[in-house]
Amino acid sequence: MQRGKASIGFEDPPLIISYASIAGKKEGEGPLGACIDIIEQNDMFGMDNWEQAESAMQKQAADLALEKGGIRRREIRYLFAGDLLGQLIATSFGTVDLEIPMFGLYGACSTMGEALALAAMTVHAGYADRTLAVASSHFATAEKQFRFPLSYGNQRPQSATWTVTGCGAAVVGKADGKIGNMKETLRIIGVTPGRIVDMGAQDSMNMGAAMAPAAVHTIRQNFEDFGVDETYYDRIITGDLGEVGRKLLLDMMKQGGSDLTNIHMDCGIEIYDSEKQDTHAGGSGCGCSAVTLCAYILPKLRSGEWKRVLFLPTGALLSTVSFNEGRSIPGIAHGVMIESGAMA
Amino acid sequence: MQRGKASIGFEDPPLIISYASIAGKKEGEGPLGACIDIIEQNDMFGMDNWEQAESAMQKQAADLALEKGGIRRREIRYLFAGDLLGQLIATSFGTVDLEIPMFGLYGACSTMGEALALAAMTVHAGYADRTLAVASSHFATAEKQFRFPLSYGNQRPQSATWTVTGCGAAVVGKADGKIGNMKETLRIIGVTPGRIVDMGAQDSMNMGAAMAPAAVHTIRQNFEDFGVDETYYDRIITGDLGEVGRKLLLDMMKQGGSDLTNIHMDCGIEIYDSEKQDTHAGGSGCGCSAVTLCAYILPKLRSGEWKRVLFLPTGALLSTVSFNEGRSIPGIAHGVMIESGAMA
Repeated sequence: MQRGKASIGFEDPPLIISYASIAGKKEGEGPLGACIDIIEQNDMFGMDNWEQAESAMQKQAADLALEKGGIRRREIRYLFAGDLLGQLIATSFGTVDLEIPMFGLYGACSTMGEALALAAMTVHAGYADRTLAVASSHFATAEKQFRFPLSYGNQRPQSATWTVTGCGAAVVGKADGKIGNMKETLRIIGVTPGRIVDMGAQDSMNMGAAMAPAAVHTIRQNFEDFGVDETYYDRIITGDLGEVGRKLLLDMMKQGGSDLTNIHMDCGIEIYDSEKQDTHAGGSGCGCSAVTLCAYILPKLRSGEWKRVLFLPTGALLSTVSFNEGRSIPGIAHGVMIESGAMA
Repeated sequence: MQRGKASIGFEDPPLIISYASIAGKKEGEGPLGACIDIIEQNDMFGMDNWEQAESAMQKQAADLALEKGGIRRREIRYLFAGDLLGQLIATSFGTVDLEIPMFGLYGACSTMGEALALAAMTVHAGYADRTLAVASSHFATAEKQFRFPLSYGNQRPQSATWTVTGCGAAVVGKADGKIGNMKETLRIIGVTPGRIVDMGAQDSMNMGAAMAPAAVHTIRQNFEDFGVDETYYDRIITGDLGEVGRKLLLDMMKQGGSDLTNIHMDCGIEIYDSEKQDTHAGGSGCGCSAVTLCAYILPKLRSGEWKRVLFLPTGALLSTVSFNEGRSIPGIAHGVMIESGAMA
């Protein structure tokens, strides 16, 4: 099972049994709008404040993922979940009613990768038959936490990204026949947990540049550990590098002899039409890769259009405290290998 | 391996191979001072600010745990670590130099339980031969994050706890002969991951009351899942309930028919002499249970004085944002069953 220096390969791959996505108005107006399960026109989601709104998304996405899979809450043995906020309050208040034993995760925008990796590891080891992986972000909670009051109308450089208001939830479980009416199964065949990479980036309005080196490190580690190269995948999909980070990633990979130009995709670039929607470098936030996974990537795999992808959510590990103290912005990226195939 | 509703029992228990603790001056003057590996007289730990000081503790504790076990950094396959700060900056900056693939965890003061549980699950499944679990807190970073500027000299009610400046690190690995010169092995025989329990507590100066119901829930779940009662353990050790939370815990358990009076211990009560040190209800913070584990609990098990304990770090899931929005303080507690015994 241990593969190479840092990866795990699953001989009897856990499945992604069902999944759901929810997002806000802006995401609904973007290129993936038609694929997202629930689009809420009011970014307060009927709640009193933004944090509660983000919690409401977590609950709705989790419940919908269960509903789509015909699974009851009590069948889920463990929950792996997180968000961007200090002390994970979106998650704590959003998942308390699920009453599921819970592992709180923080990996910045790489959280969905961390959650899927731990969920798959847990299922494959026989510790649980059904687990749930959830990650969310909300534009307004993130701006409040990391940047400026919204009413201040702060100008944003072109390298800045726009935090996605959205949540993705996926049920990861063992293959036991009860997997709904899926034509193709979605298997997690391996994971490459990332390490923290700090190249000294210091511009919090250019997180793509801060995260790209971590993504490169995890991709190279994945190739090395599994003895594969870019031709093994239909797509290598980073979380929220945006336009600036994508260029860096492609350049760095090319220097190492890998041309990812045609197979690289970035959730942050896909989720918005940056010209029409004024989102500059693209989308970001835990919800960016989580929503794109559940609304776009998994359906593409399920339909058989793609056979195998490396899903690689990317995270920028900073807080306003560390940033204001002049620290750099380290990055991290967790790789999850997802494959589609007919039921065995 | 799945035990009952929420627990995992390990047939071939992973071992705690080595461990180390580091703490500040105040902790050094407390009852456990003589047991802590490194006591630093200056709470800045030679750094420019408190956050960097906390990061320095993480690095020192991790390196010392490795050194004590005769283990090199590159032998550690995965790191499970966290702290109390927003976006886990103490951990990100403290562990980046270890260059170990990393799972960032947030469970408030329950983090050491979450880290040990995931580390043991990972080792037992064969995903790694050696992992490292780390958790830290720092009085000054926590006060800055959650309460008032230190120079403000804020008054504290008797129910308040004092955040421990300290870090504990433990190497969890498989039993393969290379376990240093330990007389008795320390085995993680099972885990009971906790769920979030929200009883509506709203007093952030009385976190013990907020966390006690979660501790009760996890203890009961552990008893039920393993078919045991309090007589199974030499000690049931909560993280940082303090004096107020301890009373609540004992009362609630007694109502359910379990008298824990003589076997319950709380790390927050042990780590300070509350009368002499003016720490009111006791210690708290991720570092409270992590330091007490590595400085006091594991040595007691290793010496054979205790045979089996339920280590149960407790966490209060709040942020200043949720608190100021009038939200309650949910709690969580993760249970880790640790047993000592002669080498097989």
